Amino acid sequence: MIAGSILIGAAEDSAAESFAAVDPATGEAMAPKFAAADPGHVDRACVLADAAFASFSETAPGERAAFLEAIADGIAAIGDALIERAMAESGLPRARLEGERGRTIGQLRMFAAFVRAGDWLHATIDPAMPDRAPLPRPDLRRRHVALGPVAVFGASNFPLAFSVAGGDTASAFAAGCPVVVKGHPAHPGTGELVARAIRAAVASCGLHEGVFSYLPGPSNALGAALVADPRIRAVGFTGSRSGGLALMRIAAARAEPIPVYAEMSSINPVILFPAALQNRADTLGEAFAQSLTMGAGQFCTNPGLLVAIGGPDFDRFVAAAGAALAGIAPATMLTPAIHASFESGVAALEGHQGTQLAARGADGPGACAALFVTDAATFGGDAALGHEVFGASSIIVRCRDIDEVASVVAGLEGQLTATLQLDADDEVLAARLLPLIERKVGRILANGWPTGVEVCHAMVHGGPYPATSDGRSTSVGTLAIERFLRPVSYQNLPESLLPAALKPANPWHIARRVDGVRIAGD
Amino acid sequence: MIAGSILIGAAEDSAAESFAAVDPATGEAMAPKFAAADPGHVDRACVLADAAFASFSETAPGERAAFLEAIADGIAAIGDALIERAMAESGLPRARLEGERGRTIGQLRMFAAFVRAGDWLHATIDPAMPDRAPLPRPDLRRRHVALGPVAVFGASNFPLAFSVAGGDTASAFAAGCPVVVKGHPAHPGTGELVARAIRAAVASCGLHEGVFSYLPGPSNALGAALVADPRIRAVGFTGSRSGGLALMRIAAARAEPIPVYAEMSSINPVILFPAALQNRADTLGEAFAQSLTMGAGQFCTNPGLLVAIGGPDFDRFVAAAGAALAGIAPATMLTPAIHASFESGVAALEGHQGTQLAARGADGPGACAALFVTDAATFGGDAALGHEVFGASSIIVRCRDIDEVASVVAGLEGQLTATLQLDADDEVLAARLLPLIERKVGRILANGWPTGVEVCHAMVHGGPYPATSDGRSTSVGTLAIERFLRPVSYQNLPESLLPAALKPANPWHIARRVDGVRIAGD
Repeated sequence: MIAGSILIGAAEDSAAESFAAVDPATGEAMAPKFAAADPGHVDRACVLADAAFASFSETAPGERAAFLEAIADGIAAIGDALIERAMAESGLPRARLEGERGRTIGQLRMFAAFVRAGDWLHATIDPAMPDRAPLPRPDLRRRHVALGPVAVFGASNFPLAFSVAGGDTASAFAAGCPVVVKGHPAHPGTGELVARAIRAAVASCGLHEGVFSYLPGPSNALGAALVADPRIRAVGFTGSRSGGLALMRIAAARAEPIPVYAEMSSINPVILFPAALQNRADTLGEAFAQSLTMGAGQFCTNPGLLVAIGGPDFDRFVAAAGAALAGIAPATMLTPAIHASFESGVAALEGHQGTQLAARGADGPGACAALFVTDAATFGGDAALGHEVFGASSIIVRCRDIDEVASVVAGLEGQLTATLQLDADDEVLAARLLPLIERKVGRILANGWPTGVEVCHAMVHGGPYPATSDGRSTSVGTLAIERFLRPVSYQNLPESLLPAALKPANPWHIARRVDGVRIAGD
Repeated sequence: MIAGSILIGAAEDSAAESFAAVDPATGEAMAPKFAAADPGHVDRACVLADAAFASFSETAPGERAAFLEAIADGIAAIGDALIERAMAESGLPRARLEGERGRTIGQLRMFAAFVRAGDWLHATIDPAMPDRAPLPRPDLRRRHVALGPVAVFGASNFPLAFSVAGGDTASAFAAGCPVVVKGHPAHPGTGELVARAIRAAVASCGLHEGVFSYLPGPSNALGAALVADPRIRAVGFTGSRSGGLALMRIAAARAEPIPVYAEMSSINPVILFPAALQNRADTLGEAFAQSLTMGAGQFCTNPGLLVAIGGPDFDRFVAAAGAALAGIAPATMLTPAIHASFESGVAALEGHQGTQLAARGADGPGACAALFVTDAATFGGDAALGHEVFGASSIIVRCRDIDEVASVVAGLEGQLTATLQLDADDEVLAARLLPLIERKVGRILANGWPTGVEVCHAMVHGGPYPATSDGRSTSVGTLAIERFLRPVSYQNLPESLLPAALKPANPWHIARRVDGVRIAGD
């Protein structure tokens, strides 16, 4: 059901202001009207979230896992209505959204299994040593606990996998944190369908209603009020750099500053090493064009920068990429505003004195891909060329030699990913660059393309500032749970007061580290 | 040797300005004069630290552990000269400083063993699934890497264990980060002796000279320049709230913000539950007086607040504490400035309309302990009463009932510790308060005193803001290493380019998580 409501715990609410979703393919407003949440709604949602914290954060692993699975089941049960609404609101094609739904459900189930296993509790026991000299050692036990209520900002480009029940929400729930979602105004119907599924799971699992609230709305003031609310203890955000920086400033200015996990921007450099370019310039060019234009280029990991040594192989790559791009139809972008921003970014590159337009996608209604060429001196001399143009726009930087490639890499801001296209003969060169690359990124990949982020234990979808606000974290994969946890230590507590994870009998049967040695749970 | 030099890598440097240590017992300046480092020294030290990063961060666990052990050996080898200089500079007694030296050496050895074991690398492997449908899974491997050069600010109150080679330095080295220490001006001779031991270990282990530099100096501008330096990637600090907040602001205003781990202030509430108070008011009062005055009260974990229900047992506790305090001699504080600040804090409490002086320590030269009594309404109505007075000053808050105790706890800022004095009959009441307490602190202890911090795996010496700048961390114990690490993921990298921790042959023989299952190293 899409009623256009604000969902605060178990209650539905309306608002003085309203807004509508826009079909990005037609520019037409869609029914129904949605209530636009305001700071009063924020206050009520946060009061409830705070009230839910004590009980939700102490749910047993099995109970919390069952909640995550109930959400996954609930999203699956919405059926095709979810896909159709998401298609209409985002302009993304069916196959992409069905895949994204699979990922969303899959990551909820992954966190359920991860929560059950219990390693995230980091249960650690250093038993008392009453006879130690000169001083006895007390009994010390440590576990990780949830930070508190978390504010999650839905992303425009993943209306399912990084929105209401996306990776941030799943990992915050997994950690034991109540969640207040600020719904993205580009897909409010999709958001409400998913929010209702979460709310139903809260009820069916018998949890406190404050575990989840959903505040849709278009205003920046709504998000600002949410991050400023004293009951909120952490923030998850995926979006623009300006948006992320604004939330970081609000969080740092609070009476009690809180962590902000903002994934903000990345141009995801691809380094084409000489032997790979010589052996595979044509296929690399074609494959690049596919990666660049996937989902209209609207991925955080879109390859917005290529770096290679100039010469005939470089020219072949550009020609092959250009030929492939010319055959790729224009695409509807997520919102008219995103499309307008893409067009102005491309126009700025077209008007830039130091860049040449190398190729554009096929003409027609929608956004049309663009590839520009420049040289290392020009790229290094203008920081604006290193800023993300969200969408299918990329720059290839022509370098004189591998040292100039290294200097381009050294000059980059923090990135989510770096990609190495290399053959066996390139490995010595790549080894020279690797330490430099590693300081810039969260994920290094070889002979693939950065788009397509596997949801697994070993994934890092993060990276040094300004790719994210906190390069010590990931927003994809099981490690994402760590963002919402903190350690607490218990010294000489009577057994009745010890949390279950640390009781001598180990009632949760979790692995624990005793005197530094890991003991399996059962 | 104490030459009064600035130590930048393998070089010694002088400066235009100089300063001297002051014997806090006499107020006399001590020889020699010390060069006061300035921003030019910061620049050179940070350039060297950055140059050392690539090689030092990739040292094998055994190599890095040997370095930590060489530092420990070097500090031990200084012998009594270190203790004597530290006594003269800090006013702390010999036994305390010998114990602190043992802790300093012990935590270096603990980190050496921890680094060798390799769990801190979090090596995680999700092998490729080439046949997975609809899309194959790539090979994904993750490890944690060092953040980069770290700035460490020595603390006044632990001239060994939280200064030049203290917990911050040890954990940053353990993580693979070069360290630039801003030496505390209160103990420059002690600092230089230890800095030379670190430098000798860098040389004897064949490491890059930039792994360590030592910049002594009294100016805030020195510390500000260090935190602002673009090559510094994280900061470790123990000191005042104003100092920590200033560093946080500088770090947040950088072009690239960096994490600051500042341990700033805590009043470490002690809750005296009714049965414990009834059964043990006298012994509790005496034990409290000992904890309050230990080391002249100059511990981060000093018990600056007691909370209990009023009545005859409460009065007996205050009387016993007062009697014990009256017999405790005044003590020399670390510096004249710290002493002056203590006196003005105590004077403010004496002049406060809502507090009554309950007891003072014995009179004489030096700082004299103080205990004040107030009620919950007064305490809750004036935030200043909840601020730390560094030294042996404490307030006991008289409550009407357990609900008022709870409301006092609920109104507290973040703290390093909370202590529960409780007997078996108190456990039901304590269980009610525990969730509230847990949200406020990093360590909860029962029937002990918060002073005395065990260095072990399960310790958390941290806590929610403003006890520290980052409640997700600890500055004591092996978990402290996590502050200086970040995850990096490697996708489909050829074997020759994989870091040793992730190579198929597991050359470091470390435990790794493969497809979610932990596999022991050997």
